[in-house]
Amino acid sequence: MHRHLNTDITLAIDIGGTNTAFGFVDREGNIITSSTIPTNPNEPADKFFKRLNSEIESLLSIGNKYNLVGVGIGAPNANYFKGTVERPPNLKWGTVNVVEIIKEYYRVPVAITNDANAVAIGELQFGAAKGMKNFIVITLGTGVGGGIVINGELVYGHDGFAGELGHTIYDPNGRECACGRRGCLETYASAGGIKRTVFELLSSSIDESELRNYNYDNLTSKIICEAANRGDKIALKAFDSTSKILGIKLADAVAFTSPEAIILFGGLASAGDILFKATEKYMNMYMLDIFKNKVKLLPSGLSGANSAILGASALIWNELEKPKEISV
Amino acid sequence: MHRHLNTDITLAIDIGGTNTAFGFVDREGNIITSSTIPTNPNEPADKFFKRLNSEIESLLSIGNKYNLVGVGIGAPNANYFKGTVERPPNLKWGTVNVVEIIKEYYRVPVAITNDANAVAIGELQFGAAKGMKNFIVITLGTGVGGGIVINGELVYGHDGFAGELGHTIYDPNGRECACGRRGCLETYASAGGIKRTVFELLSSSIDESELRNYNYDNLTSKIICEAANRGDKIALKAFDSTSKILGIKLADAVAFTSPEAIILFGGLASAGDILFKATEKYMNMYMLDIFKNKVKLLPSGLSGANSAILGASALIWNELEKPKEISV
Repeated sequence: MHRHLNTDITLAIDIGGTNTAFGFVDREGNIITSSTIPTNPNEPADKFFKRLNSEIESLLSIGNKYNLVGVGIGAPNANYFKGTVERPPNLKWGTVNVVEIIKEYYRVPVAITNDANAVAIGELQFGAAKGMKNFIVITLGTGVGGGIVINGELVYGHDGFAGELGHTIYDPNGRECACGRRGCLETYASAGGIKRTVFELLSSSIDESELRNYNYDNLTSKIICEAANRGDKIALKAFDSTSKILGIKLADAVAFTSPEAIILFGGLASAGDILFKATEKYMNMYMLDIFKNKVKLLPSGLSGANSAILGASALIWNELEKPKEISV
Repeated sequence: MHRHLNTDITLAIDIGGTNTAFGFVDREGNIITSSTIPTNPNEPADKFFKRLNSEIESLLSIGNKYNLVGVGIGAPNANYFKGTVERPPNLKWGTVNVVEIIKEYYRVPVAITNDANAVAIGELQFGAAKGMKNFIVITLGTGVGGGIVINGELVYGHDGFAGELGHTIYDPNGRECACGRRGCLETYASAGGIKRTVFELLSSSIDESELRNYNYDNLTSKIICEAANRGDKIALKAFDSTSKILGIKLADAVAFTSPEAIILFGGLASAGDILFKATEKYMNMYMLDIFKNKVKLLPSGLSGANSAILGASALIWNELEKPKEISV
C-alpha cells in the first residue's frame, strides 16, 4: 500500500458526448471542487482541450493548499495502452493522443480509459462494487458503455478497447447507429435510444400521450421518465421495450463473464425502479438456467451529479498505487 | 516452474454431448494412449461414470511405467469452483459432483471445467494460442461453447460458468434450444444447428440438392460440408447463413473482451475454408470500426481426433503448476 498526504489530490476529467465534467478529488473520493463545460460534438479536439484547460485553471486558482499527484480521464473510445481517443462515434475528433495533450499542461502521471471503464474502477474503489471481484458496469447516457472487472482487475483486452457493450448488436437489421452499423444496443438503451423508441411508438400506436406535444430535439429521457411516472402509456411502453432489449443483452453479458453483479449507471439509469424492475425481470427471463436469479442488478454507488469524475479519479489513484512505476 | 518426471502423466477426460474421449497425456502434450465411449445422453450419471471407469482401467492395464499425477476433465456446464456438472442441456444428469466421483477412483488432484474452457487452456499450452494473453476459443460441436482468456488467465467468473457463448442469444424469437430458451447461438452454429438450417432451406427454397435424400436423423454436418464442397446450393447457403450468424456473435464477443484472436474448434470448424472465410468476412462486416480487421480468426492448433483431451490435460497441468497448493 502506498501512502498519500492528506493534501494529495487528483484531477479527474470525464468527457461525455454532451458535457465534460472535471474536478479535484482526494484519496477518499471527496470532490474538493468541480465544474462542467459542454463538449460541443462538432468542435475539433485541440479547441476543446484549450477551452477545458482554461476552465480547469480558473478552478485551480480557488486554492493552493493541494498537491496534484495525477490526472485521470474517462472518454469515449479511449485507449488505455496508447493514451489516445480513437474516432469516438459521438464526437468529431478523429484520433487524438489525449494523454500527450494533458501532459503538456501538468507534469504528473496521466491515465485515460473508456468512460465506462473509469466508472467501473470508481464503483470498485468508492461505490457499489466495493469488495467485489467480478462485475460489469453499464453506462446508460448519451451512449451506452461497459466496464468489465474480472478477478478484481479491469479488462482492457488486447487493444485496450474491451467492454464496448453499447456496440454489441441487438438486431443486425435494426436502427442506424452513430458508429455506422445497425441495431447496436446503444440505439435502444441510451437516452437517445428511448427517445427513438417513443417516436416509434407514437407512430405505431394510437394511445393518447403527453409526449405527442414534444418535437424530437426537445424530448429528453427525463421527460419520458416523468411521463411514465404519471402513467403515460407511451412512456410506460417505451420503458418496457427498453428494459426488454437491455435485459436480453445483459443476459448475454452474464453468459460471457459470469459476474456477481451488473451495475447500471448514468442518466437513463436514474429513472430508478421503472427501469430496474423490468430490466431485472427480462434479464432473468432471457438468462441461461444456471445463472437465473443469481446476478444482482444494482444502481451506481457513486452518488451525485459528479459521480463520473469519481471514476476518472479512481482510475489514476489505481495507477498510482500499482506496484510497477508508470511513466510520467 | 515445477519439475515433472518424464514418467509423470495426467488422465484427461473430455465429456461431450455425443462421445466421451479419455487418455493419458504427458507434460509435452503427447498422448500416451486414448479411447472413446459414447456418452449416451439418457443414461444417469452414476452408470456413465461406472462404465467410463471400467474403460479407463482397461487402458491403464496396458502399461505400468507411468506415474499418474492428476486428472483433468472437460464437461458441459462444469463448475470449476465446486467440481460439479450442473444440469447440462444435452445430458440428462441433473447436478453431479464429478470431482468427488473421480476422486473415489484416483488419489490425485482432480480439476474440472467447461469443455470449451479446457480447450482454451489446451490452445494456450499446446496449440494455436501459445504466447497469447487475450483470446477466445469457440467450440462448434454438438453444442457451442466458449473459453475466454484474459491476461493469460482463463476467465471463470463469480460462479465458475463464464464463457457460455453458445447460449448468448442471436434471436429472442428464434429456434428452440435444449436449454429451454429460444434463439441461442448454439441452435444455429453447432453441428445440429447447420442441420436445422439445411432443413429450413429445404423448405423455403426450390433449389435442387443432394441433401433432399437425407432424413433429419441421418444428416450430419460432415455430409453438409461434403455437399458444399461439391457445389450443392442448399449446403452452400447453409454454410453462408451459419457463418453470418456466427460472425455477428463473434463481433459481439470482440466488443466484450477485445481479444487478439478467436480460435474455432470442433466438428463444424473442421469444415475449414468454407466456414472460416465467410465467418471472417461477416465478423469484420458487423464489427465496430476500432476492431475491424485486427482480430485473427484461427483454426485450432490441437491437431487430431484427440485434441479435446489435450485441453483436459492442459487444465490439470496448469493446476499442478499454480503456486498455490490445490486440495487433493
